Amino acid sequence: MSLSKEEIADWFRQLQLHICSELESEDGKAKFEEDSWERPGGGGGHTRVIQHGNVFEKGGVNFSAVHGELTEPIMKALELNDRNFFATGVSIVIHPHNPFVPIIHMNVRYFELGDGTYWFGGGIDLTPHYVQTDDAKFFHQQLKNTCDRFDANYYPEFKRWADDYFFIKHRKETRGIGGIFFDRLKEDAGHSKQQIWEFVKAVGETFAPTYRSIVSRNKNASYTDSNLKWRNLRRGRYVEFNLVYDKGTKFGLETDGRIESILMSLPENASWVYDFRPTKNSLEADTLNRLIKGVDWAAG
Amino acid sequence: MSLSKEEIADWFRQLQLHICSELESEDGKAKFEEDSWERPGGGGGHTRVIQHGNVFEKGGVNFSAVHGELTEPIMKALELNDRNFFATGVSIVIHPHNPFVPIIHMNVRYFELGDGTYWFGGGIDLTPHYVQTDDAKFFHQQLKNTCDRFDANYYPEFKRWADDYFFIKHRKETRGIGGIFFDRLKEDAGHSKQQIWEFVKAVGETFAPTYRSIVSRNKNASYTDSNLKWRNLRRGRYVEFNLVYDKGTKFGLETDGRIESILMSLPENASWVYDFRPTKNSLEADTLNRLIKGVDWAAG
Repeated sequence: MSLSKEEIADWFRQLQLHICSELESEDGKAKFEEDSWERPGGGGGHTRVIQHGNVFEKGGVNFSAVHGELTEPIMKALELNDRNFFATGVSIVIHPHNPFVPIIHMNVRYFELGDGTYWFGGGIDLTPHYVQTDDAKFFHQQLKNTCDRFDANYYPEFKRWADDYFFIKHRKETRGIGGIFFDRLKEDAGHSKQQIWEFVKAVGETFAPTYRSIVSRNKNASYTDSNLKWRNLRRGRYVEFNLVYDKGTKFGLETDGRIESILMSLPENASWVYDFRPTKNSLEADTLNRLIKGVDWAAG
Repeated sequence: MSLSKEEIADWFRQLQLHICSELESEDGKAKFEEDSWERPGGGGGHTRVIQHGNVFEKGGVNFSAVHGELTEPIMKALELNDRNFFATGVSIVIHPHNPFVPIIHMNVRYFELGDGTYWFGGGIDLTPHYVQTDDAKFFHQQLKNTCDRFDANYYPEFKRWADDYFFIKHRKETRGIGGIFFDRLKEDAGHSKQQIWEFVKAVGETFAPTYRSIVSRNKNASYTDSNLKWRNLRRGRYVEFNLVYDKGTKFGLETDGRIESILMSLPENASWVYDFRPTKNSLEADTLNRLIKGVDWAAG
């Protein structure tokens, strides 16, 4: 039996619940609260938010499965030939308290048109306030392991794509240490639709154990007020990326999406200080130097 | 003798220094620090920033006078026929500490091309964290008085323009209580270039006494932690407007402008809370209800 959009949406919804449960275990205190919403044009979603936990200050794990008719400008922008669309996915951003625990983002999604056109997209990327070599290597190695199970070209290709995508052009800085990013993935000579779906599921399943491992290693690290100030400056950069460049955010704002679900990606607190320059040889200066494209974290 | 671009730039630079001196007097503690910078393509500017004052947490008063060659995409977007440009102006954003002192923004600018095309633009708008009727009426009345000295149509036209421009579409909220906004103002049957310049100068001169009056009335108001939280949420909205909609910011980011001067408009601290809803009948709820277009503050 061929893969149906309902099957994909059901699996994504289960992934959302599973990830929330894993994050609650890691936090030990806060629970996700769920808002269910309907989209006037068709479908809806469940937005799950965790706030003021032991570990997580603010985080969102969104599921949606929406359908309806695309507008002409969007059809044109996406170069599509059919108006009827279905889209489902899970989208996550987690902002931890501790400056030594990284921000993480994941998105897995499926898009289908009435004429049978479809594609998968997604990615996971990590934004440490302080770049730590062991965490960065571990993170990229986990992503590479998942990719390599399906196609040896996936990791190098999708890693480069993430470097290019999660880039704050006006700062000439990457948002964090990248990860993987892919879009418009569909069957080809080497992969069936089912195989791509298995890959997307594997990416989704990589999220919880990978992030929990990084969180648990760092969540009890001690920190100073100066570390918190730097954390908030880095969160400011996160806000800049999401409001200026992030395609999902822009698409949501332009298509009158559910604002609170779209902007749950923004941190509880962010800060901007005029012309801040870290002290020479500080941890902060080291991080800035490492927010560049093309670092081969999974090497060796 | 006809008005030269040097004369305009010199006056803008003096306006910058005058406004900084007025704001320092109002603050009573902090002083502006000046960074002078050169633009690789031609010209430069002086960025003046005040931080951690008695009254002002973070504020910037920028002057620039730049020249060079426009790129093809920008010429096309602005519908221009000459590549050689000159642009000068003063741009201000002030974020006060006290939640009962409003954020203010002003911009006055002049643009000229090698073929003689020119225009003036500008505006002043007020963003109270709490909308207070007396302040709002006073602010709009001052702007109206200035406009009315030059053209009875200016205030109604430029007030409507500000309502439309300073609008956060995705929130369906105005950024604040508006003010005036105008662009591409040049000589016509009713106004010479000199007369328009006198109007632009008058707008610039309206800033300091008007804002000082509002600041001095509110700077000693007592406030609670809950007022500060609300202030930071409203600052979050300010960030959303500036990064998503503000044309000056977008233009600066896209043309590789001096980032620290462009983003000095962002507050030291901003906050986002998932689906925050003010208590019924609270001051916060009252403010939200008044962040709408079309309020005739200068009436009566």
